[in-house]
Order: sequence, then C-alpha cells, then structure tokens
Amino acid sequence: TAVITNDKAALWTDGRYYLQAEKQIDSNWILMKDGLPDTLSQAEWLTKELPVGGRVGVDPYLMSSETWKPMDKVLKEAGHMLVPVSQNLVDLAWEDRPTPPQNPLMVLPDSYTGQTWEDKVLKVREKMKSKNCGAFVVTPLDELAWLFNLRGSDIQYNPVFFGYVVVTKETVDLFIEEERLVSSVKDHLRLNGSSGGKVAVTIHPYGHVGKFVAELVDKVEGKIWINPKSSFAVFNAVPKNRRYVQPSPVTAMKAVKNATEIAGMRRAHLKDAVTLCEYFCWLEKEVPKGTVTEVSAAEKLENIKRGQKDYISLSFDTISSTGSHGAVIHYKPSAETDLPLSTSEIYLCDSGAQYKDGTTDVTRTMHFGTPTDFEKECFTRVLKGNINLCTAVFPQGVKGHMLDTLARTSLWNVGLDYLHGTGHGVGAFLNVHEGPCGISPRVSLTDVPLEEGMILSDEPGYYEDGKFGVRIENLALVKKADTQHNFKNKGFLTFETITLVPLQNKMIDPSLLTEKEVNWINDYHTQVRDEVGAELKRQGKQEALKWMMKETQPIG
Amino acid sequence: TAVITNDKAALWTDGRYYLQAEKQIDSNWILMKDGLPDTLSQAEWLTKELPVGGRVGVDPYLMSSETWKPMDKVLKEAGHMLVPVSQNLVDLAWEDRPTPPQNPLMVLPDSYTGQTWEDKVLKVREKMKSKNCGAFVVTPLDELAWLFNLRGSDIQYNPVFFGYVVVTKETVDLFIEEERLVSSVKDHLRLNGSSGGKVAVTIHPYGHVGKFVAELVDKVEGKIWINPKSSFAVFNAVPKNRRYVQPSPVTAMKAVKNATEIAGMRRAHLKDAVTLCEYFCWLEKEVPKGTVTEVSAAEKLENIKRGQKDYISLSFDTISSTGSHGAVIHYKPSAETDLPLSTSEIYLCDSGAQYKDGTTDVTRTMHFGTPTDFEKECFTRVLKGNINLCTAVFPQGVKGHMLDTLARTSLWNVGLDYLHGTGHGVGAFLNVHEGPCGISPRVSLTDVPLEEGMILSDEPGYYEDGKFGVRIENLALVKKADTQHNFKNKGFLTFETITLVPLQNKMIDPSLLTEKEVNWINDYHTQVRDEVGAELKRQGKQEALKWMMKETQPIG
Repeated sequence: TAVITNDKAALWTDGRYYLQAEKQIDSNWILMKDGLPDTLSQAEWLTKELPVGGRVGVDPYLMSSETWKPMDKVLKEAGHMLVPVSQNLVDLAWEDRPTPPQNPLMVLPDSYTGQTWEDKVLKVREKMKSKNCGAFVVTPLDELAWLFNLRGSDIQYNPVFFGYVVVTKETVDLFIEEERLVSSVKDHLRLNGSSGGKVAVTIHPYGHVGKFVAELVDKVEGKIWINPKSSFAVFNAVPKNRRYVQPSPVTAMKAVKNATEIAGMRRAHLKDAVTLCEYFCWLEKEVPKGTVTEVSAAEKLENIKRGQKDYISLSFDTISSTGSHGAVIHYKPSAETDLPLSTSEIYLCDSGAQYKDGTTDVTRTMHFGTPTDFEKECFTRVLKGNINLCTAVFPQGVKGHMLDTLARTSLWNVGLDYLHGTGHGVGAFLNVHEGPCGISPRVSLTDVPLEEGMILSDEPGYYEDGKFGVRIENLALVKKADTQHNFKNKGFLTFETITLVPLQNKMIDPSLLTEKEVNWINDYHTQVRDEVGAELKRQGKQEALKWMMKETQPIG
Repeated sequence: TAVITNDKAALWTDGRYYLQAEKQIDSNWILMKDGLPDTLSQAEWLTKELPVGGRVGVDPYLMSSETWKPMDKVLKEAGHMLVPVSQNLVDLAWEDRPTPPQNPLMVLPDSYTGQTWEDKVLKVREKMKSKNCGAFVVTPLDELAWLFNLRGSDIQYNPVFFGYVVVTKETVDLFIEEERLVSSVKDHLRLNGSSGGKVAVTIHPYGHVGKFVAELVDKVEGKIWINPKSSFAVFNAVPKNRRYVQPSPVTAMKAVKNATEIAGMRRAHLKDAVTLCEYFCWLEKEVPKGTVTEVSAAEKLENIKRGQKDYISLSFDTISSTGSHGAVIHYKPSAETDLPLSTSEIYLCDSGAQYKDGTTDVTRTMHFGTPTDFEKECFTRVLKGNINLCTAVFPQGVKGHMLDTLARTSLWNVGLDYLHGTGHGVGAFLNVHEGPCGISPRVSLTDVPLEEGMILSDEPGYYEDGKFGVRIENLALVKKADTQHNFKNKGFLTFETITLVPLQNKMIDPSLLTEKEVNWINDYHTQVRDEVGAELKRQGKQEALKWMMKETQPIG
C-alpha cells in the first residue's frame, strides 16, 4: 500500500517483500515494514504527518469496508477524514497502464460442476428468503465464477474473472464488459434470445455496479445481503439500516463439494500423481549429474503437467527448494536465488495445478542421496502428524481449529513445532486457498464446522532454519465416519486422503511409528499402486511406473 | 432473576432449577426457562410487556456491567430505559431478611501463601504503572482474598468475604465493616498503630465504595483499571474516558501458583487421597449390605474429611450418584432423589475439600459388583483421554482450548463424546473453579496461554442417559517439559498429576490400552502406593491401606 502526502511518500509491505522493496524503490520512498512491532500503521503514520483537518483520499473500490472502518475511526479521532475519491489518482498519472485483462470466459459444463447455474441461483434465493433479504450482492470473484459455472483467467493461477453480480427475487444482474462474453458463454447464460424466465440475466458494464447497488434500495424490499469484505464503495452504497452484513451464502455452498465435483477432484489428483511420479523419477536420474536447478526443475514439472488432459495452468508458483531454501516457507526460486539440486540435501517441492476437473496442491519432501538420522526423524514425525490428522474421527460441529493440535503432538513431544497452519480449504477448479474452513491454531471468527464434502489440505511441516525444510501435504475429503456408536445422533466424520503420491521410503524411520501408522502407510501405498499404477500404465509411462513401484514397497 | 412489572412477575432460571422452581413458585409467577430456544430474554420480555417509555429499575450493585449494557441497548431501542435504583426494592419488602454474614476473617500465614500481601500490592502497582493506570478497583471476592492473604466464609464452599479494594500508587483502601476485622487481621494489615508505609491500608464501610470510586477520578492521574465483570454501579462510577477496561492483573497472578502454594496443594491432595481411600474401602464393605444411600455416603465422606489437618470445608456439594443419576452431570443427591448404592450399578463420586493448604476436586467412578463390557469400555476410553491430555507436551503460548481434543479422540473413535469442557482452573485454598485458564472446546476471549504453575482439572467423561455416568478427574500442575529440542526457544510444557487416588482396576479393559498407557497407569499406581501408602501408614489407617494396595496392583 502506498500513502502519499504533499511532501512524503511511504510504502507498506510485509516480510515477503522487504528485500525486493529496498531494491526497487528509490530514495523518494519511505519503506514501512508491515508486521514489525515498531512499524506504524497507515492511519497512525498519517495522524503524525498530517496538519489538523487533513483529508485522506482513497479509491473506495480498492479498499474493503473491513479495512476502511478502523482506519476511518483512527483518522476521525485525530481530526482528519477518509474521503472516497471516484477518479483513481494513480490511474491519472499512470500513462502506460496496461489495459485490464480481456480474456474470454470459459463455460464449465454441468458434467464438471454437477449443478446448473440456474439451480445455484435458485438456492441462493432460498437463503436470501430465509434471512429476509430482497437482494444479495456477490463480490468475491471465485463466488461469481462458481455461481455461473464460468471460469476466467484474469488473475494468474486463479481461474476467475472480474465482475459483480446482484441477485434479487426476480432478477440477476451481471456486471462485466459484454464483449468478453463469447457466443458459448452467451448461450450458457441464455442471452441469445431464449428466455431465462425466473433466472434471466441482464448484462451491465462493469463500472456501473456502484450506482446500481445504490439504486437497489428503492427497488427491493427487505435487507440487502453484503459481505464485510466487499469494497467500501459497494458496501457503502447500501444504507446502514438496509444492510445484512454476513458472510455470503455462496461461501458455504461452494465449500461443500457435490458428487460430480468430488469425482472431478479425484480425476485431477490421479493425473497430478502421474505427473509427480514422472517428475520425481526424472529427478532421481538427473539430480546426481548436478545439472538440475530449482528453477529448471520447476519448469520441467510445469512441462510435464501440460501433457495431462484438461490441464489449464499451475494453481500457484511451484515451491521448488533445496537445502536451506526449504526452510523458507513461501520460497519461490528465481534467477537470483537459484541453486542446483544435489544428493546431499533435502528437496522440498510444493506444487499444484488447475485442471478443468479440479485443483491440486501437494507437497513431497525427497532426498536423492542419504538423509541424516535427524532429517529422517523430522520427516517421520511430520508424517505421523499428517496421519494422525487425516485418520481423526470427530463429531459433526467440530471446527478445524479443534483438530490442529493432532498434527503437532508428534513434533511437540520432542520439542519441535512449525509456525504455520495445518490446512486450508481448496476450490474445485477454483482458488487453491478457499474459505471458510481451515485447520489452524488461530481461531477465526468466520470459521465454520467441518462438513461432509469439504476438501482441505493436511500439511504439517518442520523447518530447520539455514538447513532444510520438511513438509508433507495431501488434500483430504471430509466424509462420514463409520463408528460403532453415534452419540446424541450427532453423526461422526473423518477424512479420506485424495492425493496419491508416494512418500519417500528412505525418509521414514519405522522405529518411530506405531503399528497403526505403519499399516496406514502400507495401505496408502497399496492404493497408490492400484490407482496411479493403472493410470501410469494407461498413459504408457513405464519408467515412472517402475519408480512408483519401488517407492511404494511395504515398510515395517 | 426476577422481573416484576405492575401486573406480572416472572422468574428466569436455567435447566438445573426448572423442576425446583415449578414446585416452589406459586401461580403469581411466570417461570421463564433460560436456555430453551423459545424463552425470551429479560429485555425481550420487557419490551413486549411495557407500555412505551417504560422505566426498568435494577439494583446496580447486583448486575454486572457486562449484563447491563446489552440489556440497556435492547430496552433503549424499544423506547424504554434501564434505571439504577439505589435502594434495593426487594430489601424494602423483605422483612425477615437475614443479616449479611459477619463471620470473622482468617489470616493465611506466609507459610501457606509464599508471598506477603505487601509484595502482592507492590506487584499490582507495577502492572498498573505499565498500563498507565493511577488506580485499580478490585471487585472479584477471590482476588480480594488472594491479594490480602485473608480468607472468609461468607459464601458456602468458597473461602472468601464480601469487600472491595482500591489500590492507587500511594494508597490501599479496603471496604469492609471494621468490626469483622479481628485483632489478628488488624495486626496482619498493620492497622494497630504500626506504619504500613507505602502499603498502609485504610478501612472504609463496605457501602462507601461507589462514592469513593466516583471521587477517585479527581484524586488520581491516568486511567482507572476496572474489569468488565464489575457491578454496573462500580463500573459506571468511573467516567468512560478514564476507564481501563481489562481483566484484572490479579487474575493472571493468582492463576500461577508459587512454590509454597504448590507444596500446599500437594499436601492437600495427599490428605484428600487418604480420605478417599478410607471412603471407598468403607463403601466396598458396606454397599453390598444395601444400607448406604447417595446422601448417607456423601455425609460419610464429609465426616471422614473433617478428620484431616487444616480441613476447612467441602469445596462444593459432593456429587454422589448411582446408576442413571451418574449421567446427570451436576447431580446433587437430596432426600427426594436419594437412592441406595448397589453392586449392580456404577457409582460416580465427584468431591473436593478446602484445606488451609489447598483446594481439591477429584472424581472417581467405581463398581462394587461386576461392570458390563460396555461400562468397562467407556471407563477405559475416558481414562485414555485423561492420560492423553495429562501426558501432552506442548509449547509455551498454547491455550487450553487447543488441548481439549486430546481428551476426546479415544471416545470419538467409536462415536462417543461428552457435552462438557475438560478442565477448569483451581484456586489454592480459594474457589474450586477459577479463571482465566481452562480446557474446553469453547473458545473464550479471555483465555490465556497455559503457564508453568497453573493447576487445572483433567476430567473427561461419558454419560449414558438413564443408565450410568463415567468421569475421571485429576488435578494437574502445568510444569516444564524436558524435551530433546527447544524449537525457537519457545520452552515446552506438560502436566503433572497431583491427585493420587487409585483408578479402579476392575473397570479397566487392558486390551484397549497402548503399552504407554499401561505403563502410565502402573507408574501412577506406584506413586499412589509410595506417597499415599506412607501417609495412610502414618495416620494408622491399616484397612484403607490394604484396600489401596489391592486397588493399585499392576495391570497389563
């Protein structure tokens, strides 16, 4: 975030970008390191800098109502004002600004979504009715994509497109430049003359949403459902006494995958497992030659993934990290940091892809030489945590934060830990990080109980600064547990791991495992042999198949 | 809570008292069952009953500021007003009202408290200084007792006395009727002529606190520290812009027991273990005769406890429950419900005592005949949960709610659960339930990380409605864990069980236990033999000693 006064200019950024910012900003800028205890917030800095009665302009479409309110409060208390500025001042000065993405949208057929967009709109209307809402303003881009069974490519890795939609009892108004809607999309939305009936869509220019929402107030009865993460511009267009401020109903609907989406996620994970077997098999051959680097490895993996059916893109920058880089949790290899992979260091690879049928996110930690006993112990304890979480049985109503500890006790027992959460929700051919569910020691106020059909990551880790990183990440589907009893008819749940990639045997110290854990690993590897084996055979990838069979030999 | 309008009278009470209220109130009263979904809140009921512009009087000393504010808000929005009434109207009508307790206070010597009250006051002043507070108003009675190393008997089971104290940088003002201060208490507080210097105490009549707090504002600089659970009268005596509204610093200081308090708690638990061995030994002999009932058993236990050194009172009503009564979590036997103990049903006994050196709270579940396989399975799974929690190792910073799941997984695995929290803080010769720490699936905003020296209960259970209840409760001390590593120098913690009462062997199904669990039970019983055995011998309780030795035989 940049804040510019008449005589100063300051840039706030978090720890990921301190170094980059120091390199790239010139002496006109003050770097404000977000997250350090002594760094002033933007509002605090402004109250120090501004003469009494200062006016602080903000593009209200670029700040959420959640951020606006506390900043406005601090400024007001110091005698200043936060002012929405309708013409973005940076745009005025930015002469060679690239045009916004105009990539065409893609229709995702019902065979991938399992539910027509019309049915989704009708379900949203039921939720609106139950809350006495006459209108519902959808602002998160993944919710828009999910609701219409459309996908885009406006944001790297996230198959979404810029737009807004307003649903009322009678109308569906979509705000997007009409030229972006190719003929198939128009057919899909029934814009080519056929009547949409109760779910007829009207297209408006993207920029008209603010005015439209402001005019809603006189057009509909009841409250207007708006989520607090909306931009201040859209949020504030609804008068306070008409707002129903709650997380969008689509958030919860989207988090619970239907049978078609689950089948698609399974297909995506099977294909992804094939690519990773091919990749690790290749690495095992190439790494000893000393010619593979973090960057070239990541490129190789992307190339392999491109060969799979319905592949669209990666789902995030591949974390391809060797040795000490593995301890940098969000490491992204670049020309400046690139290192060769070797047989003397651990290699951590966190990668994922978008397929038309699903989104993947998987981490494997490998050693192409001989791991030390401590490296093996760390790997094994992380694996114990991963297994302990995904085999947990728990009653309906349990929220993710109540399960986080289960992934840590094997590390805590010897005084180890990791400083990140254990799991995040994952979209179905949508964003690789998706709310509202998650598994973390931090308690979130918007956290919801885990439900059958949700898909989350299970990714404990251990990071030895300056030396190595270990993380084992599988995606897991929440499903009904088959228990002997059913206390108070609550219903019990558990997880099914849907990621099917071998766990490197040589990193496992069986002496640290219980019999149950050994059995889990052997059963998992049997499943990999059956399912990934068949697919590797079908795709004629003999070498990768051989590698996979070697890596999945029974232990214990 | 009673709410009386010009033509109606309503009584709100929770599930524990529905039946009693129905029996005891006459037809003039409407019973409002708190906690049922259709029951109106007091504010909702009033807005329905009152004509516009209603004024609702409340004794502001009997309602916390936390309760007042939301009620005030609802009433205001409906055009009414909440009005503090300085003369309690019930007192006016209550002709034979008993006088408030006037029991003399007791000085708790430094050999029990480990810290002089003067040192405590100085530490409180340091905390005040660090928060820029010129005064601190202490309202919770257990904090008052802790701060002055005094105990009282104004409330059954809780060794506290009615009073307030205000600490400023220079003064300590105690609000209590002076005639309650016997000579030893006056000496202790240095009220007999000797100078208290910086910590000189001034005594004021109990009823003067409101006026005094209101006048503080002009006497001290800085904020006035007041906790939001204070009565509205005291809270509101401080103007809003002068309030520092935070949990009292004493809450955290009191929760962490010092070495002297810990030694006292251990002594108290040893004596308590002796009484329970004597009691269960007696029951085992008497129950088969069919003459012991829940009530007579509880009386017997109280009589046994009276024989121990420094015994003061029970710390709560003994839960002495047979068969289906065991499934009523807060069951208190009475003449109406009393049942004989038998050899065909489980007996659950949750009891505790106040000794001058500490407070106890322990639950044991026994069968004096032959338990069924299911009863044994439930007991064993509850025991596994108890062990899994108390053997947990966890880093500094972990809050209780992050450990709650560890006590439940053994039940969840087969579809069982229990509907209460797993642990509460316990005072050192103070209230048996004490904040701020706890172990529960509910996340409390005032929850704090567990710290070395805190003492909490570990009490998972299982309740089969209409049949039986199982609960195993030990108190556990948070202590440093000895771990191989020490991630980020966080420091790791674990628990030490300080309750030393045999776990009935016949209720344990060893086939459900891991080797580690079997070892834990055998080690625990060895410790009981060593420590309780020596004390039973010292006290000449041969029969109880024999019973204890039989009940602590190694298993597995």
